[in-house]
This record gives sequence, structure tokens and C-alpha cells, in this order.
Amino acid sequence: MNEQLEKTAVNAIRILSADMVQKANSGHPGLPLGAAPIAYEVWAHQMKHNPENPNWMNRDRFILSAGHGSSMLYSLLHLFGYGDLGIEDLKNFRQLDSLTPGHPEYRHTIGVEATTGPLGAGLGMAVGMALAEKHLAARFNREGYPVFDHYTFVLCGDGCLMEGISSEVMSFAGTNQLDKLIVLYDSNSITIEGSTDIAFTENVGKRFEAFGFQVLSVEDGNDPKAIGRAIEQAKAEKGKPSFIEIKTKIGFGVPEKEGKACAHGEPLGVENVKALRESLDWPLEEAFAVPDAVYEHYHALARQGAGKEYFWKQMFEEYGEKYPELKAKLEAYYDENSPISLLDEEGFWERSGKAEATRSISGKVLNELKDRLPNLIGGSADLGPSNKTVLSGETDFSAMCPQGRNIHYGVRELGMTAIANGILLHGGLRTYAATFFVFVDYMKPMLRLSSLMGLPLISVLTHDSIGVGEDGPTHEPVEQLTMLRALPNMHVFRPADEMETRAAWYSALTSLKTPTCLILSRQNLPVLENTGKDALRGGYILKKEAGEKADLLLLATGSEVSVALDAASILEQEGVSVRVVSMPCQDLFEEQDQDYQEFVLPPSVANRAVIEAGSSMSWGKYVGVNGCYITMDGFGASAPAAQLFEKYGFTAKAAADRIREKLL
Amino acid sequence: MNEQLEKTAVNAIRILSADMVQKANSGHPGLPLGAAPIAYEVWAHQMKHNPENPNWMNRDRFILSAGHGSSMLYSLLHLFGYGDLGIEDLKNFRQLDSLTPGHPEYRHTIGVEATTGPLGAGLGMAVGMALAEKHLAARFNREGYPVFDHYTFVLCGDGCLMEGISSEVMSFAGTNQLDKLIVLYDSNSITIEGSTDIAFTENVGKRFEAFGFQVLSVEDGNDPKAIGRAIEQAKAEKGKPSFIEIKTKIGFGVPEKEGKACAHGEPLGVENVKALRESLDWPLEEAFAVPDAVYEHYHALARQGAGKEYFWKQMFEEYGEKYPELKAKLEAYYDENSPISLLDEEGFWERSGKAEATRSISGKVLNELKDRLPNLIGGSADLGPSNKTVLSGETDFSAMCPQGRNIHYGVRELGMTAIANGILLHGGLRTYAATFFVFVDYMKPMLRLSSLMGLPLISVLTHDSIGVGEDGPTHEPVEQLTMLRALPNMHVFRPADEMETRAAWYSALTSLKTPTCLILSRQNLPVLENTGKDALRGGYILKKEAGEKADLLLLATGSEVSVALDAASILEQEGVSVRVVSMPCQDLFEEQDQDYQEFVLPPSVANRAVIEAGSSMSWGKYVGVNGCYITMDGFGASAPAAQLFEKYGFTAKAAADRIREKLL
Repeated sequence: MNEQLEKTAVNAIRILSADMVQKANSGHPGLPLGAAPIAYEVWAHQMKHNPENPNWMNRDRFILSAGHGSSMLYSLLHLFGYGDLGIEDLKNFRQLDSLTPGHPEYRHTIGVEATTGPLGAGLGMAVGMALAEKHLAARFNREGYPVFDHYTFVLCGDGCLMEGISSEVMSFAGTNQLDKLIVLYDSNSITIEGSTDIAFTENVGKRFEAFGFQVLSVEDGNDPKAIGRAIEQAKAEKGKPSFIEIKTKIGFGVPEKEGKACAHGEPLGVENVKALRESLDWPLEEAFAVPDAVYEHYHALARQGAGKEYFWKQMFEEYGEKYPELKAKLEAYYDENSPISLLDEEGFWERSGKAEATRSISGKVLNELKDRLPNLIGGSADLGPSNKTVLSGETDFSAMCPQGRNIHYGVRELGMTAIANGILLHGGLRTYAATFFVFVDYMKPMLRLSSLMGLPLISVLTHDSIGVGEDGPTHEPVEQLTMLRALPNMHVFRPADEMETRAAWYSALTSLKTPTCLILSRQNLPVLENTGKDALRGGYILKKEAGEKADLLLLATGSEVSVALDAASILEQEGVSVRVVSMPCQDLFEEQDQDYQEFVLPPSVANRAVIEAGSSMSWGKYVGVNGCYITMDGFGASAPAAQLFEKYGFTAKAAADRIREKLL
Repeated sequence: MNEQLEKTAVNAIRILSADMVQKANSGHPGLPLGAAPIAYEVWAHQMKHNPENPNWMNRDRFILSAGHGSSMLYSLLHLFGYGDLGIEDLKNFRQLDSLTPGHPEYRHTIGVEATTGPLGAGLGMAVGMALAEKHLAARFNREGYPVFDHYTFVLCGDGCLMEGISSEVMSFAGTNQLDKLIVLYDSNSITIEGSTDIAFTENVGKRFEAFGFQVLSVEDGNDPKAIGRAIEQAKAEKGKPSFIEIKTKIGFGVPEKEGKACAHGEPLGVENVKALRESLDWPLEEAFAVPDAVYEHYHALARQGAGKEYFWKQMFEEYGEKYPELKAKLEAYYDENSPISLLDEEGFWERSGKAEATRSISGKVLNELKDRLPNLIGGSADLGPSNKTVLSGETDFSAMCPQGRNIHYGVRELGMTAIANGILLHGGLRTYAATFFVFVDYMKPMLRLSSLMGLPLISVLTHDSIGVGEDGPTHEPVEQLTMLRALPNMHVFRPADEMETRAAWYSALTSLKTPTCLILSRQNLPVLENTGKDALRGGYILKKEAGEKADLLLLATGSEVSVALDAASILEQEGVSVRVVSMPCQDLFEEQDQDYQEFVLPPSVANRAVIEAGSSMSWGKYVGVNGCYITMDGFGASAPAAQLFEKYGFTAKAAADRIREKLL
């Protein structure tokens, strides 16, 4: 290997990144300058990847958890020839409609494995990918046929490690001995506010030892060979994930900024970019110019990657011949459309007609689904028995039993969500994550990434509203429905009974680029008539008005639908013609055409009311300025649930009274 | 000391707790049965507290981070005679309007130092209290006069320690050497889903060593003396906080449930409560009956506490004589109303007339305030220079300089919020916490507690909306305004210019039982006329309609107010009479009387539009079913901000076009 050429190849990453930030006049040059040798060593020598096929099932994964270093990632993708990411794209860094946005975006730039930026997220997604690999390997590999056999690399900085999610997911990775996870810590001792000493004096390596990691360190982050040796050691360790602390200098090569906080998040300045070229002995003056020899070097490396996939494909072909059933099963795992046909099978839409909590119904549905969808795995943040998310008869996922389908996440809602995102990003699996609805607050930062990436994550959120009862206001969601409905590209489903719960699961499994939150009751709900597949339209007429024209539109969801029906009865006895609309999913209703929306909610009917034991905010656009809101806009209390529904006015009589007074 | 009596005193906690849960038929008996000896040892022998004066400034604090063990806390408060919490109150555990709700609630039950329940929260609040103590001690103590000299005890379980927030706040406590913080770990090896081994095999003690703690352990959680010795060792350690792992048995004393997950969160059952009485040799059969000798014992302990306060008061009196100025200053620290008079001082409402980013204006205001409010301290999650929250000329809070006022939280948004809540709970200080607005998602679970507890926390959230620009959708808040507005008891202020920013700070400092979020722009905003104190009403007429009656009400906030004014100009040139309403704080507007609300938004004007670069959801109740929403209901993109405002239609021309098309 030509050592000088390798050095120039490393510096190409630095120069391109610095040029990108400088041209955009925006971005983060500090990390790419410091961490380029790490990235180079991983991508050039340690990672098994084929730029020609970024979807190769068994590729090693690389996640840039420190997503603000995106210019480094784009430089790598460009140099390795991913998806024809051209030099023009690098020149358009951070510009409108470019392939090179400020932070890496999944589904936007070929080769980007995950959207990162919110710190710590990448660590969690990497754990999810490593989990998926271990599970799939246990399910599908056979002696001599390592179909799934890849590493997951994740590069993080101090910021990622200060975030609490880092402890949640790394403790989980240690417990489950995800030994193909390799965490690379770009340790530069600098944060935005100054030296890490001001806020972060902990012994990070020791923390990872406590989690059950092999902990390694590299003193000179400019020595790719030393980095390579540490990675080899990480790969050799069976039974523990590895954490490699690599000492780097933020802003390396820029005398004025090296090792300083000011190197982190602003362009270097024209003079400093010039100084960088000098200190690196970079041969070309022109911005974005890279020597041909460097390109050739990267292309040769890319061809090596193609070769690796070629051999894997040969092995996989033999595997298919020897184990045709396994191969067919594997293909079914990767068939995104399989839920649709499976759910349309007879029996799924059958009504049992039993009054139950929607969480219990959900548990039954899930257990019906488990054999139809063998690639569905999931778990709860230590509330499985309450969330009714345990797949009965299935084993637990663990170090000893990675083929298990029930994941024990521990009390780590945020980490769980990131891990679940990672499982989906890996491919081949569907997954759900569960906790009490109120604790979706902890999940929020990572749910936002599910939405942004368009991942079909299913969040099973039980114990909704004041129906929680005795646990009181800390455990009673009020504003969470609004919070989730306001999140773009998220389906929030609050079913009212069995059939709507089935519809919710159906929707969740068949919405392939949108995550779904299932909001489920703790308490039993009455059996309703006329519910069913219509719920898939988000909102529908559950009870038509008695008269020719409705005097009142009454909207409700979940546990309040039966209250609305009873309130409607009271009012109809008084001669008011009431239409009851069940609206289990506002988001799906918004996706319907205008005709349907106006069919359900005729613009001519101005009298409108809503009953929902949650904040009023999300109903304004349906119920309007003069509407009647029977909602919860303050915190709940601790008492038996029935008393709380009474206290806060969620009874048929109280609702009818309020509506009469306000509207009629 | 009568050893037998002490044993019975410990068991009284167990019996009362079990009886409470049994009578309520709801609750968590497992923790009280296991941890009663820990609680007893702390409250009886280690903690300096006076039940007669729960507000004693220098009392030791005790936080039950595992809030589901509330029955234990109520038993303690009852036995020690706090606030006349009677046996009837215990019998009403978890009932409507009782003093003994499902989880401990601050401001609801005398002696409860913090609302807990969401796991890990108590750990963070304890760190905040320990920080406050250290800061106040550094400011006020003089040789021989330890005015502030108390410990903060926090009792947590496995769940608290699995939550990521535990690492955030404990790493912070270690960095800042909060050596009067004593963490008591009720280590029972059981979680809801089973043995902790399934999800939590990490070496917790080693993790705390990594954070810089003294780590101690007690093998027998039933040995109060051993627990006491460990606590003495914790108190003796100067320079490090302490972590004591105490091995306990969940559900201790109930043969059928001891050491099992089923002991955690459901009533024991009548037979098991009977078995508990037997196995503990409890002398009385009747539920809630406690031997007189036990009550007398607790009352004697309470009197010892009163004695401790008596001596402290004597010392404090002398201190006042020797240092009258310091004492006066201290009283000012504790005077909640001081911000009101200070802010009404001349000069605060003066207009500089400079076009600036509201974050910069906020930074100036904060620095004007810092001398007027010496008890104001705060910091950012590693974004101080960007959030403009650094108090210039003030030192950093640190182990070496605990009198410093600038706190470096590190990249730990959730932990920061819990710590800030703890600072406020301690008393004597006001505080703010800052990060980028989009990362309020990480803060949410703890902000909810700020609202629930009624703490006047000020969150400084800069870089709002697509104004963030190049950093792209991961960094551009969209749904966050709605999320916060839906949270009960939270003021969300999005000011449009300098005067509104001043109003926002004024409101934040003078709202004593409501937290405030300040949502501030990254980019410069134009100078507006007619803004000012009216903003304190939440919404007000910024520009009256040209004609006699408004044809259109145009609402806007923050950076979109100037767009609304320009759009109104365009429309008025076309003969449309437009009223522009600036609505920086919906929550305050809702607090105004109906007359004012209808004065600003006359019900007779049906044509309504809103311009806000955030989700439409919170505007429905003002703008209605047929209104015009110029809002952001999808994710943003990475590009220079001005291009994004153009792309998404936030220009005067685009807005006028949309309004004309939709409404006119």
C-alpha cells in the first residue's frame, strides 16, 4: 500500500469537508478535520460494503451519530462513488433541494443509513441494527452459510455520550452482548461551551466497562493503523460489544483553530482553509479539486467491496439451493407487502363482541398476528404485562437466545424508540415498542426521527387519559394526543372498541412509510355497533342523524365514543338530530379526499362538539371557534377512573348538558 | 435505644403501607416492604428535619425518586406528624381529593419535596437541590455560620437507574462534586417484567464510580445500623457525592410474594396482608392500627428535629446581627415578589429600536436583569453562546467556584430540566435552562413536571422554526409550539421583537406558579411599532383595521408578525380592512376575561387567518373550520433561511395571495 497516497486520501476527506462548509458558509468543519483518519480506516479497510449496491443485505453498517459532521460523510460517499454523488452535490452542501443537507437524511442521500443530528440518536439506532443482525443471524444462518454476518460501526462524539440515551442503549447492548457493535468515540475534549472538563469529567471508558463492553483506546487519532488494530481487536471479541476511545484534535490542520471550541460549528474562513491546505501539504489549490490518483485509489477500494458482495452472493445462492425453505422465508421477511395480504385473510375482521380494554384487544390481535408475521419482533420498556405486548409462546430475545422475539427494553423509553428505529433501518424485520401513553414524552425525540425517516414503527401506548385512575396526574396523559397529532407523518390511532383496534393494527402494519401510535385504554370499553373497516378512513359516520339533516355533529374517539353515542340518544329524545362521528385517526382522515371529508362533516352543519378526554387543541379545525369542547385542558387527579370521568364531565348526561347549553 | 421498639417502628411503615394499598385496592406495596428500614434510618437518625416546620430553609431534603412507593412516604409523614396527615388520610389513599394521591405531589401534601413518578425525575431534582445548597452556602455561609449546610437524600430503584436521565444528572453531580448528595439505591433485583437480569446486567456501582462518586454498599437492607454506617461514611466524604447500593427484598415479609415481580404494583390481597402481620410479629390485627408506643417514639424523634432547628435559628439570629447586609440579601433571595418591583424600575421598557434576533435581545435583557436579580442563576445544554444565555462577567458554577452563576449543563437537556426544577424546589433561587427549540423534545418529560408542580422555570429556547435554515429538518421545530401550548399550566411566549421579548421575560419572572418557555429566533427580526406591555395580555391589536369594521382578522406570532403586517398592507391597498393581532402567548390570552378576548377578536368577524411557521393545530379555536392557515404542517428542509420562508409561503405576497384565494 502506498502510504503517501493513503495520507492524501485521508486529507481529501478533510479538504472536501472544509471546502463544503466554507462554500455553504455554514456547517461544522471541526469533526471532519479531526476524525477523517477514523472514517477512512473504517471505510477503506474495516467495513465490508459495496458502493454499487448500498442495499446489500449483509453490508456492514456505519452510522454517523455525530450527524453535524455530515460533510465528512458526504465526502466519503462521493469518494467511494455511492449513488453518483458528484462534486456538484458537494458544492451544493446545505442548499435547497441538494443531496447534501445540513445533517444526514435517510431516504434522501444514497448510502446514508440513518438520519442523525439529535445527539445520541445514532448510538441507539446502531444498537437496533446490531440487534437485528444478531436476531436474523440466529434465525437464518446455517453452518458454512453466514447469511447475516456484519458489523455495525457507529461514530460518536462527547455530545452523544453526555446524552442519557447513550447509557440506556449501551447498557442494553451490554446486557444482550451485541458483540458486533463497535462504538468509535471521537474524543477531542472540546464542546461548544469549551473544554469537556467543564461538564464532563466522568471516566467514559469505565462507564462502558460497567455496561459490559470491551474498552479500547487509541492515543493518536491520526494513526489509521493503530485505529485498525483496535478495530481488529473489537472484531475478535466474542461476547461483548466494543468501545474504542480515539483521541483526536478538533479542527486538525488549522493552526488557528485546532483543539478549540471555535473549530466546531462555523466555517473556517478563507484564510484558514488556505492554511489547512498548507499544513496538510495538499497538492491542489482549487476548491473541491481532488487528485486523480486519490479518486482511483477510492475506486479500487470500492471494487474490493464489490468483490466481497460477489462472494457473499455465491454463498447465498448455494444456501438457497441447500435450504430453499429458509431462503423463501427470508424473502418473505424482506417483502414489505406481506402484511397486506396476510391481514386480508379471513378471520382478521371477525367480531368477538366482548367488552374489553383496547389494550387487551390489542394484545389478542398481536398474538393472532405473530404467526402470520414471523418477522415481527418487539417489546416494552418494562411494562409488557400491562401493555399486553408479550408474544405468548415466544422466547425472549437475549444473548443466549437471540432468535427470541420478545425484547426486554428495561425502563428506557427513549433508548427503546431509537433501537426500534434501528431494527427497522436494518431491514428484514417489523417491530413495535410499548410503554404507558404518558411516557411517550420520553420517546418523543426519537419518534420524531421515525416520522422524519418514514419508518413504520408501531408504538403501543396503553393506559390512556384519566382512565389511568389512581396513579394520578403524573401518569395521566392529557396533552400527548395533541403532541403526537401535531407531529408530521405520524398516524395517531385511538380506537374505541375491538373493530377499531383491529383497524388500527391493520393501518399500522400496512402504512409502510409512516409510523403509527396506538393509543389504548386501560379500562374496559363497551361493545359498539357499526365499527369496522371504515375506521381505516380515520373518521366516519358511526351513527347517522335521526332527522333528515343533522342539527349537530358530535365527534369523539376512544373511550369517549360510547359517551357520545349515549349523549346523542339523550339529545335525540329531545328532538335534536345528532350525527356521531368516530374519529380514531385524524391523520388518516386528513388524507381522505375533500368529498369524503365533507360527506362525513358537512360544512353546512355549524353546530359541532367534540368529546375526548385529552387537550382540546387538535379539534379546533373540526369544531371551530364557536364549537363545544368537552375535553381535558388541565391535569387529572388520583382516584378511581369512573369517578374521574364523572368529575371532569365525561358522562353522557354532563356532555348532553354542556352541548345543550353551548349550542342548542 | 429500644431495639425492639425500633423494629416495630420500621414495621409500622410496612404495615401502614400495605394496609393503604389493600384498602385502595390499588398501588405499589413492594417498595415500602423492602425499603422501610432505609427510610426509617434516614428519617429517624440521619436526616435533619423538623416536622413542625417543613419549610425550614436548612432542612435536609428527602426525595422519593421511586414515586410509586408513595404509601411509604405518606406513612412516614403521618408517623412523624407532618401537617396533621391523619390516619383517615392514609385510609383515603388514592381516592378523589385525598391528601394521599397515587404518586407524591408537591404543593399538595405537606412534607412532599417534589412530585415524582416518572422514573429518574427525582434523581435530577435531587441534584438540583444539592446544587442550590452548594451555591447558597458559597454565597452566604461565613465562618462559624453554616446557614446552608444540609444533605439531599434521594431514594431510587432499578427503574430510575435504567432511565438515561440518571446518567445525565449523576455525571453532572460528579463533575461538580456535589458532595452533600447521597443516593440510596433500593436494589431488589426485580423489575415489572421479572429479574433485572433480563434487561439490566450492568455494574451500577462501577458506573457511579465512573461518574466520580464514592460508591458504598450494604448487603442487608434489613439492618438499619449498617445503613446508618454507610450514610455516615457518605457524609464524611468531602469532594464526592455518594452512592449507596442497599440490597433489599421487594415485598419483604410476604412469603408468597417476597422477591418476586408480582410484589411490585398490585395489592397484596387480604390473606397476604394477614401473612405479613404474622411474619413481622405485628401486634395489632386491625388495619391501620399502630401501637401508641410507636407513635410516641416517632413524636420523640420529631421533637429532636425541632431542637435542631431551634439551634440553627439561634445561630441564624447571631448571623443576622453580625452580617446584617448578608441577611437582608438572603431575605431578598427568598422574596418571590422581588422580580415585580425590580422589573417595574425605569428603563426596563425602553426601546432601543434595533433590528435584532430575539435571542440576542433576550441575552441583553438577561444581562440587564442579572444585577437586579442576584438570585438568578442558569445555563444551557452546551449551547450558551448560541442561546445567548451567558451572564457576562459572572463566573461559572463549578466544584471550585460554587458561587458561580453560569451553569454548564453539558449536552443533557432532560437532566438539565430536572436539575433546574430541583433548584427551584430548593427555594431561594430563580433559574433558567436553555437549548435549541427543537430539542425541547428531550426536555418534555421534566417540563411536564415543572407545569404540574407549578414551578416558575424559564426555558430559553432559541433557533425557532425554519429560521434555523441550513441545519435542516432535524433542527427545525415544527410541532413543538403546539406540543408546549397543549401542556397545562405552561406559558409559551414567542415574541416578535424587542418589546415583546421584554414582555416575555417580565411575564416569565413574575408568573410565580407557572413555567414559561421563551421561543426565540435565530435570525434578525425587523423593528415593529406599537409593541409593548400589551403583550402581557397574550394577544393584542397590533394594527387596527383601516375601515370601520375589520373584514379580516390576521393573527401571527414571532417572526411572522412582520410578514402579517406587510400582507395586511397589500390587502388594504386592495380595499380590504385588516386587523393584525399579535399573539405572542396564547396561554395568557386565554387567561384574559371574555370581554377583552372579544375586543381583540370580535366574534362578528368570521374571516380569519393565521401566519405562523409552525403546526396549524393550536390555531383552530381562533381561526376556525373555514379559516386560512399559513402554517408549517410538514418537516422543513436544509437551506438558507430566507429561501425556506419563501419556499413554504411565509412572505407577505404569498400570504396575501393565500388569504385572498381562501377568504375574500
